[in-house]
Amino acid sequence: MLALWFEESEISIRDVPVPDLEPGEALVRVRSAGVCSTDIEITRGYMKFNGILGHEFVGEVCAPENHPLIGRRVVGEINCGCGHCPACKDGLERHCPNRSVLGILGRQGAFAEFLSLPSKNLYVVPDHIDDEVAVFTEPIAACFEVLEQCPELSGGHVLVMGDGRLGLLQAQVLKAAGASVTILGRHSRKLAILEGVGITTVTESSNLLAPSNEGWPAVVEATGSKDGFEMALSLLAPRGSLILKSTVAEPSMVHLAPLVINEISVIGSRCGPFPPALKALSESMFRIAPMIDARFSLSEGVQALERAQKKGTLKVIISP
Amino acid sequence: MLALWFEESEISIRDVPVPDLEPGEALVRVRSAGVCSTDIEITRGYMKFNGILGHEFVGEVCAPENHPLIGRRVVGEINCGCGHCPACKDGLERHCPNRSVLGILGRQGAFAEFLSLPSKNLYVVPDHIDDEVAVFTEPIAACFEVLEQCPELSGGHVLVMGDGRLGLLQAQVLKAAGASVTILGRHSRKLAILEGVGITTVTESSNLLAPSNEGWPAVVEATGSKDGFEMALSLLAPRGSLILKSTVAEPSMVHLAPLVINEISVIGSRCGPFPPALKALSESMFRIAPMIDARFSLSEGVQALERAQKKGTLKVIISP
Repeated sequence: MLALWFEESEISIRDVPVPDLEPGEALVRVRSAGVCSTDIEITRGYMKFNGILGHEFVGEVCAPENHPLIGRRVVGEINCGCGHCPACKDGLERHCPNRSVLGILGRQGAFAEFLSLPSKNLYVVPDHIDDEVAVFTEPIAACFEVLEQCPELSGGHVLVMGDGRLGLLQAQVLKAAGASVTILGRHSRKLAILEGVGITTVTESSNLLAPSNEGWPAVVEATGSKDGFEMALSLLAPRGSLILKSTVAEPSMVHLAPLVINEISVIGSRCGPFPPALKALSESMFRIAPMIDARFSLSEGVQALERAQKKGTLKVIISP
Repeated sequence: MLALWFEESEISIRDVPVPDLEPGEALVRVRSAGVCSTDIEITRGYMKFNGILGHEFVGEVCAPENHPLIGRRVVGEINCGCGHCPACKDGLERHCPNRSVLGILGRQGAFAEFLSLPSKNLYVVPDHIDDEVAVFTEPIAACFEVLEQCPELSGGHVLVMGDGRLGLLQAQVLKAAGASVTILGRHSRKLAILEGVGITTVTESSNLLAPSNEGWPAVVEATGSKDGFEMALSLLAPRGSLILKSTVAEPSMVHLAPLVINEISVIGSRCGPFPPALKALSESMFRIAPMIDARFSLSEGVQALERAQKKGTLKVIISP
């Protein structure tokens, strides 16, 4: 099968074997996949992953033949736990120390004609959700994780930092949950996607209007930049919460004393639950389509990754 | 009055005026004061404070004449809120944006013959608590803050990093609250103070025995070192809690990605409640006296601060 392969800082299209199935796994024919900034970070050394990139996808179950979901359109949770360790037994497969992660850790990814995942990771996509929208299930699930970790955010003021893919989705998820949301970005074009949604958009931090003189009670850092953390710290009120979504390969230089003095809580937040994300997409709650900037075939995968790295690009879709 | 004065990286003994009292304040004749690593950090530029250092003290109320506590021995909360702002109205004077902090921010400190504090900050010390032990009320209160912020620690396994003054106190406070405590330090002499208390002491991180393969569910970072944060991150289990007590003037170089991947929570923790600290001291719950390494008169204050900076020193006491 064709696949977009990353190895030793080279990205190329290769012909590779279709994945073998382990017991309990299904083979999925990929229909569409999205490029995530994590993919870009991996090409810069993050996670030291080599192989097929990509973890946001929608596809059709095509094997084994007797699979109950055969022919159905699915999306899939990307973390595959061992099923035996204490984390898995606590329902925390996403934190299983022996896990594989689609296109990120020990498991070939979604920029290919086929991928394999445990059947229990798959969720059927309602017919009326387009492929290109379904691709957003995984990042939207990651945004719902913030609400699982900090349910109190739904009743308060939240600042989202970053107007990339994740920031725009996070702002919408928080708004839909009832939060009063402000998003700080750099690109009027991107922020315009949120026009009329009831989210305050700001392009200059000097124009931010915090709900109190002390600062923000909660900031979600989704800039994808190594400098976002310290800036978020500076915007928080004492006892505020900094929810960190950016995964950056590079180290950050941080003054930690303000974190102690102001008794800030920092909550690292990664992957999240698929059911609320699919439900929200099924109800067309979010503006998704305007976030798609470019579409490529899998054979143009190298160009697709180049396009995704261009300043100001939102979502790039790759379809086999 | 005599006072230990810090200004433009010079520490000296000076003759300065006795503090004027604002309405609601009391004048306290200092009996003993303790040197804290925050004092040392201030002499390295932390908080940009100039003036009289010192914030751990016991003293006697000596003015105004009609003060209800006149002649009584007291300790005092070091944060003085404005009383009017939202933080103060929520009972969070410690986070008042207009606050002064004894010997740290906008208020002359305790390495002097006299200090002033709002009367509401003062707590009477039971007669049977020695002066030198009472001096520890403030740092012990800071250790109780951890339990206020993370009450779940009392039922679980906690690793305390650092065998300095704060680490030794924090380990004892957590143990007394019911936690299963391990302390990681570098000095057998210091760790020996905890012998027989039921706290596991370890001098090499390679000898740490985490309660699960994944790591520690909670780590209190009290090393006072800028490298402690990243080391604590590496020892935590997924979804673990890092309680950060060290205040370090220098910035730290930190890889933040593991914080996101493992969904770690970092809780900054500073000053704490005096009543539980005084109660614990009143019940002689902790080993305090062996932590006192040296005693100086106020006129020898410069030497006292030098002694406190010597490698391996625990508590240094200064008495006017």
